[in-house]
Amino acid sequence: MCGGGGGAFAGSTCVVTGGLGFIGSNLVHRLVADGAAVRVVDALVPDHGGDTRNVEGLDVDVVVSDIGADAVAEVVEGADVVFNLAGQVSHTASMTDPEKDLFLNTVTHARFLEHLRRVSPGTRVVHASTRQVYGRALRVPVDEDHPANPVDVNGAAKLAGEHLHLVYARAHGMRITSLRLTNVYGPRQRLSSDALGFLPVFVRKALLGEPISLFGDGSQRRDCLHVDDVVDAMLAAVDDAGAGRVYNVGTDIDHSLAEIAEIAVRVAGSDSTITKTAWPADHQRIDIGSFRSDSGLIARELGWKASVGLEEGFCGTFAFYREHPWYLSST
Amino acid sequence: MCGGGGGAFAGSTCVVTGGLGFIGSNLVHRLVADGAAVRVVDALVPDHGGDTRNVEGLDVDVVVSDIGADAVAEVVEGADVVFNLAGQVSHTASMTDPEKDLFLNTVTHARFLEHLRRVSPGTRVVHASTRQVYGRALRVPVDEDHPANPVDVNGAAKLAGEHLHLVYARAHGMRITSLRLTNVYGPRQRLSSDALGFLPVFVRKALLGEPISLFGDGSQRRDCLHVDDVVDAMLAAVDDAGAGRVYNVGTDIDHSLAEIAEIAVRVAGSDSTITKTAWPADHQRIDIGSFRSDSGLIARELGWKASVGLEEGFCGTFAFYREHPWYLSST
Repeated sequence: MCGGGGGAFAGSTCVVTGGLGFIGSNLVHRLVADGAAVRVVDALVPDHGGDTRNVEGLDVDVVVSDIGADAVAEVVEGADVVFNLAGQVSHTASMTDPEKDLFLNTVTHARFLEHLRRVSPGTRVVHASTRQVYGRALRVPVDEDHPANPVDVNGAAKLAGEHLHLVYARAHGMRITSLRLTNVYGPRQRLSSDALGFLPVFVRKALLGEPISLFGDGSQRRDCLHVDDVVDAMLAAVDDAGAGRVYNVGTDIDHSLAEIAEIAVRVAGSDSTITKTAWPADHQRIDIGSFRSDSGLIARELGWKASVGLEEGFCGTFAFYREHPWYLSST
Repeated sequence: MCGGGGGAFAGSTCVVTGGLGFIGSNLVHRLVADGAAVRVVDALVPDHGGDTRNVEGLDVDVVVSDIGADAVAEVVEGADVVFNLAGQVSHTASMTDPEKDLFLNTVTHARFLEHLRRVSPGTRVVHASTRQVYGRALRVPVDEDHPANPVDVNGAAKLAGEHLHLVYARAHGMRITSLRLTNVYGPRQRLSSDALGFLPVFVRKALLGEPISLFGDGSQRRDCLHVDDVVDAMLAAVDDAGAGRVYNVGTDIDHSLAEIAEIAVRVAGSDSTITKTAWPADHQRIDIGSFRSDSGLIARELGWKASVGLEEGFCGTFAFYREHPWYLSST
């Protein structure tokens, strides 16, 4: 899979921050296959998704550093494209340590953008934001004009990070696009933590045949996006038509958490039972209710549309983890 | 003026952060006159508006500290009301030192909110936000449903600070209200800096008879709010009906910058000429165009409405500075 591809990014130099993490490493795999020279920056923050094994066997430069460090200026200098995926994703962790979330999603991004502005202002930049910036949906589907009212520190900090990127695009003429991702699943996700969203928990439990607990009645709905679709969206967003823009990236199809659990168990062919449990207080106070994305804008402007259905996506995902069982036990 | 009042806040304990600054010190004067016991926290950040002379002669406790410091927990403990006005206000400074703005408008506020949550979660909190969170108005007047698209780091950071306050209100059940203030003028403003908005510059130049330069054709419009109206709004916002809410606070009347300069010069009775000059790049790239607030929501819900007109407001403002000429020369 590694090197020598002849795709659109062949011969280009790409930087992927958070490139040892879930989405980042999938993007790195794709870019390498496409023939790009890839530089990875990842702080390997404990309890996040970063793991050097995610890029094992690939010929990439890896710099273990937070993206704000001065040394990162050299990494981005001269890059054709920077995919800025570094950050903290845990909603519950953001509420127990707000300052850490602000540091990782805001302060280090300000430093990183300053590096870029100084050494490589013409570089194309794609930033990973999140549907968490919207908070509780006032209406579904949620398009980009829906008000942003984050319900937790993570949403507030990610939105500030997104705004910083757009400020640099508009005030400094930099070519930056930000993508608001819905809930993402697929290969190379850290499965062992219960703090990184419900999807890796469902995947792990379905694979291990363990009971899956739904909070409340499991009727809240989510738009589940396969990481291959995210990678496609990131590559599509390199198009200059997207500079200075923000796009939703979702499947625009929602399922209840109860349905998602049922599909996971059925596709895994496992013995997991699905039970209902009272909401834990730390989850309930920041729950967003139901969410479904309207990703029509990126379809119209950049031609991207999700293509992986949930059953098909789970099928490939489970096959991957059965071939790479360390994900199930790794802490 | 000091002490012994019998107003609504008589006998209460109030904390004012940023209380040595422009708006904060005007609020402190009012609270003391009303009979409140007032504790002030102010970091006296160089180049900001804080000055101990702003509260000279008042019987208040002053703690010189950033609001995130551990020692501030003791200051807020047991307070009836906290007015959280600390922050960085300069738009241009936020673009030359983004990290400092994020620290002062976001990180220290996260620390401060953690102090409050821990030691005094029942305290009523009023937070000063800004119309800068909206960025360029897509339509005027701008109500609270207008999208927030900040054009500079200051707007992004202030919005994150506002969101943090609302997250604490909703997730932790704290009684917090945030007010988005338009351009404010009046007594006790730092006049000597050109980086704190156009109003103190116009006031200083009109008083000194110096030429006032308008950027471009001076046709961009602003909603200018007297600090006495801001103080009234802050006191009105202590009403529990405002808990968890965000309100615009403006006069809902706009004037072009050219008109504002003309009114200032006329009311000051000075010899200032008004000239037009090319936009400086550092201002133009973050200019928001024209702005007028719709403050109907706070009028309906909390009964506040601006009452000071621009001519009347300038008149009292100039009288104040003529009695306190150190503001004109102080750096």
